Parts: sequence; structure tokens; C-alpha cells
Amino acid sequence: MLSKAVLKYINSLQVKKYRHLHQAFLVEGAKSVKELLQSDFTIEKLFITEEFFRKSTEINFKNFSYELITEEDLTKAGTFASNNAALAIARMKDPGFFKPDRSELTLVLDDIRDPGNLGTIIRLADWYGVRSLVCSDSCADFYNPKVIAATMGSFTRVKLFYVDLVSFLSDLPADIAIYGASLHGENIHRLNLQPSGLLIMGNEAHGIRPEVEKFMHHLIKIPKFGGAESLNVANATGIILDNFFRNQHEV
Amino acid sequence: MLSKAVLKYINSLQVKKYRHLHQAFLVEGAKSVKELLQSDFTIEKLFITEEFFRKSTEINFKNFSYELITEEDLTKAGTFASNNAALAIARMKDPGFFKPDRSELTLVLDDIRDPGNLGTIIRLADWYGVRSLVCSDSCADFYNPKVIAATMGSFTRVKLFYVDLVSFLSDLPADIAIYGASLHGENIHRLNLQPSGLLIMGNEAHGIRPEVEKFMHHLIKIPKFGGAESLNVANATGIILDNFFRNQHEV
Repeated sequence: MLSKAVLKYINSLQVKKYRHLHQAFLVEGAKSVKELLQSDFTIEKLFITEEFFRKSTEINFKNFSYELITEEDLTKAGTFASNNAALAIARMKDPGFFKPDRSELTLVLDDIRDPGNLGTIIRLADWYGVRSLVCSDSCADFYNPKVIAATMGSFTRVKLFYVDLVSFLSDLPADIAIYGASLHGENIHRLNLQPSGLLIMGNEAHGIRPEVEKFMHHLIKIPKFGGAESLNVANATGIILDNFFRNQHEV
Repeated sequence: MLSKAVLKYINSLQVKKYRHLHQAFLVEGAKSVKELLQSDFTIEKLFITEEFFRKSTEINFKNFSYELITEEDLTKAGTFASNNAALAIARMKDPGFFKPDRSELTLVLDDIRDPGNLGTIIRLADWYGVRSLVCSDSCADFYNPKVIAATMGSFTRVKLFYVDLVSFLSDLPADIAIYGASLHGENIHRLNLQPSGLLIMGNEAHGIRPEVEKFMHHLIKIPKFGGAESLNVANATGIILDNFFRNQHEV
């Protein structure tokens, strides 16, 4: 059984302020915890059910500080509606400073507020091999349990850098191409996009802010063939990434 | 103020059984209700705030049976965490029977259970001009308030047909191309896809069922360039649709 103090600690990690105070975050569910245990994140504590312990023969639990608890306790402690597998407390990692790399594409997120959207975008970035995301300070927190859950384990492979986006863009070397999604951009189907430079995606409701838009060299858009006014930002990110990678060799 | 009877009726429409009993469904929020009022759905009743009434000068409210209510009452009645605009009760429409049309692409959904995913897929279909979705009986209900909300108004332009998918596929004319998304399919970047025939997308966790898979003529996949194991089904649908429409003229 979980002590009151531990339960209180776990609950506090649902709040950004306490996550950053403790430099720790929650990872929940079988798939995400398995990916975490195989990553280079440091595990503070692991809570698992007997069933997860028995089934996960690929994991050497001796390497971790783990505790067996019931499904009920696990569900009570975490944010999932139900969790019959695992919850981990992991240590945050400092991503360091972002160094633009001309040989690859970097995703830049301007004010993506919804944790589900941010998590899904991280998963898409991971699928296409995009290793770095530069996020405006107003984006959802990488370590929010809903973001972590939506990444389906991809949080272990993609680095997020939170910056003041306007200063960040002002300081960039001039020869780095900056693409931005805009309803008034060029049709991505008619461009021969190559995965290098920066791709900026904007807020769910308001798009890219004008003070960020002025840094963009190339406005691009997804052509439309029907009636919908817009696309969800995660869906749009996936479609645009796919267009950047069409001439590359898959792994 | 809403009477208890009306409140009870609205609440009952959150449940599939009662929606189908009353042949009515809920539409919530400014964007969705506006699209509804401009569509050919029949409106049973409209509940709006004074603010929405004053702001929506493009709508002739005299054409509808409407009632002004407070934001508090609106939020209490509906499913949104907050709603300062509108809630409508609309009549269901019978989509009739699906007739395969060789000149267009039809999306087929096998066991898409999550209402958010179904709604997002409807929005994507609408963006690409896909007018019909054939859904297995086990898919989420089109009229679920979460599905309607996630479509962002696209529910007014896309028709859904619920069928026993195996019998439906058995009865199809043999010359209709059937594509299916599969991790073992051909790379969509290397195919010259044209938007005609059927595209089958499978369940979030289990993919396309074997009994459905055997009808597929073309297995196709999104090539992968990084570490993620899979993509969310709505994201995958958007990316594949984009590949089907790359040689078409946008509207």
C-alpha cells in the first residue's frame, strides 16, 4: 500500500510548479513505462502491479527501486481512469541549449496549449525522425502527464527546448530556412520540400503569432479539396512532416 | 431557465440508446452550431446565450425555435466543461444505403472506438472532400456529442454508413479497388495513388481485423524515419489521405 506521503508526492507531480520544484515527473501505463525503463532517464521510483511484473519478462526489475501495488492503488495515485500496469516517477533531464543543425529538420511550436496535441506532435516527430522541438514558453509543459501519455513512449527520443520564440528566431543564423504553416502559403504538393531548417506550427485557434510570422521565409499550406475550414494542428503537423520526408529513405 | 423535463431530455441525448429512440442529437459550441444552422439538418430546439444571439448577425434566428438561456444553464445542460454560446437539438438524418462510386475515394473504418478519433477523421475526410465513410457497427456513434464536437462542423458535410463490414465487403463489385493501412504494406511515397475506391483504416490498438484484411487488394503503409512504433489512427488517416490527393486540383 502507498503511504500518505508518497501518494501526496505523486499527486503533487500532476502540477507543473511541483514537477519543476522536485525536478521529477510521472510516466503511466505499460507502453510508456516500458519505453522509459529502456531509456536513459533516471528512475526515482517504480510502482507496478504483480501482473505487469510477471508479464514484463524483458525488464530486469532488480535495476530499479520498485514496489508492487494493487491496480486500485495505482489508479488512485495516477491520472489515468484506470491503470493495471505501472506508474513511474522519473527525473527530468536538462536538454541543454538548442544548436541549430543545418542537416536536419527541427519543429518549432508557437503556443501549442493543448497537452494532447503536444504529445501527439512529439509522437509524429519521433516517427519522422525529428529529434528536436523548439517550443514557445507558452506551450504546454513537456512533463505534463497528459503530454507524456499522448507521446506513447516517444518522449524518450525527442528533445524539447522551451524558449522565448521571438528572441530565439532573432538570434538564428540567416542561412537557416524557416518554413511556417499558413492558410495563405504555397501548396506543399507543388514544392520539393527537403527536411532541413525549421518548420513552425502555430496555436490551435489563432495560428502563428504575427511577431513570429515575420521571421518566416516560406509560407506553406496543405491544399484543401473539401469543406472543412481548418485541420487540427497535430493532424496538420503530420501531413506537413510527411511532405518534407517523401524523398528520404525510410529506416 | 430550463425546465427539469427539458434538462432531462438533453441529458438523455448523451446516451446512444436515447439518441436513437428520440432520433435526435446534441450539437454544442459556437462553431458547430453555426455550421448546423447553415446545413440541411432539422433543428428541434436551440438554446443560446444573449451574447451568441447578438454576435451571430449572419443567422436569422426567427427561422428556428430558440430560447435564450444563461451560460451557467447551458454548461449545466451540455457535455462541455464550459459553453458560452449555444446548444442545439437536431434531428438525425437517414443516410440511406451506401452506393459505391468508382469516381471517388470512400473511407472505411474498422472498429474505430474512440469518439475523438472518429470526429477528427470526419474532419479530415471533409478537408479532402471525401463525402462518405463506411463504418463497422462497432465504431463509435456518429451522433455521440464528443464525435460531433471533434468534427468542428464537418459532421454537416460527411455521411456515415454503419454496416456489418464483412458482408459489406463481400457484396462489393469486384472492380472496386480496396486499399488498407498496414505496417507491412507498400510505401505510400512510392505509389501513385489516385482517390478512387475504398481506403480501410483499422482499430486504434489492433489494426484491421483479419476477417476484413482478406478483402484488401493493396496493403499500404506510411514510411517511418524514426523511433515511434506507431501513429495515432487519425494522424495516419490524414497522412494517407494527403497521399491519395497529391495529384488532384485543390478547390
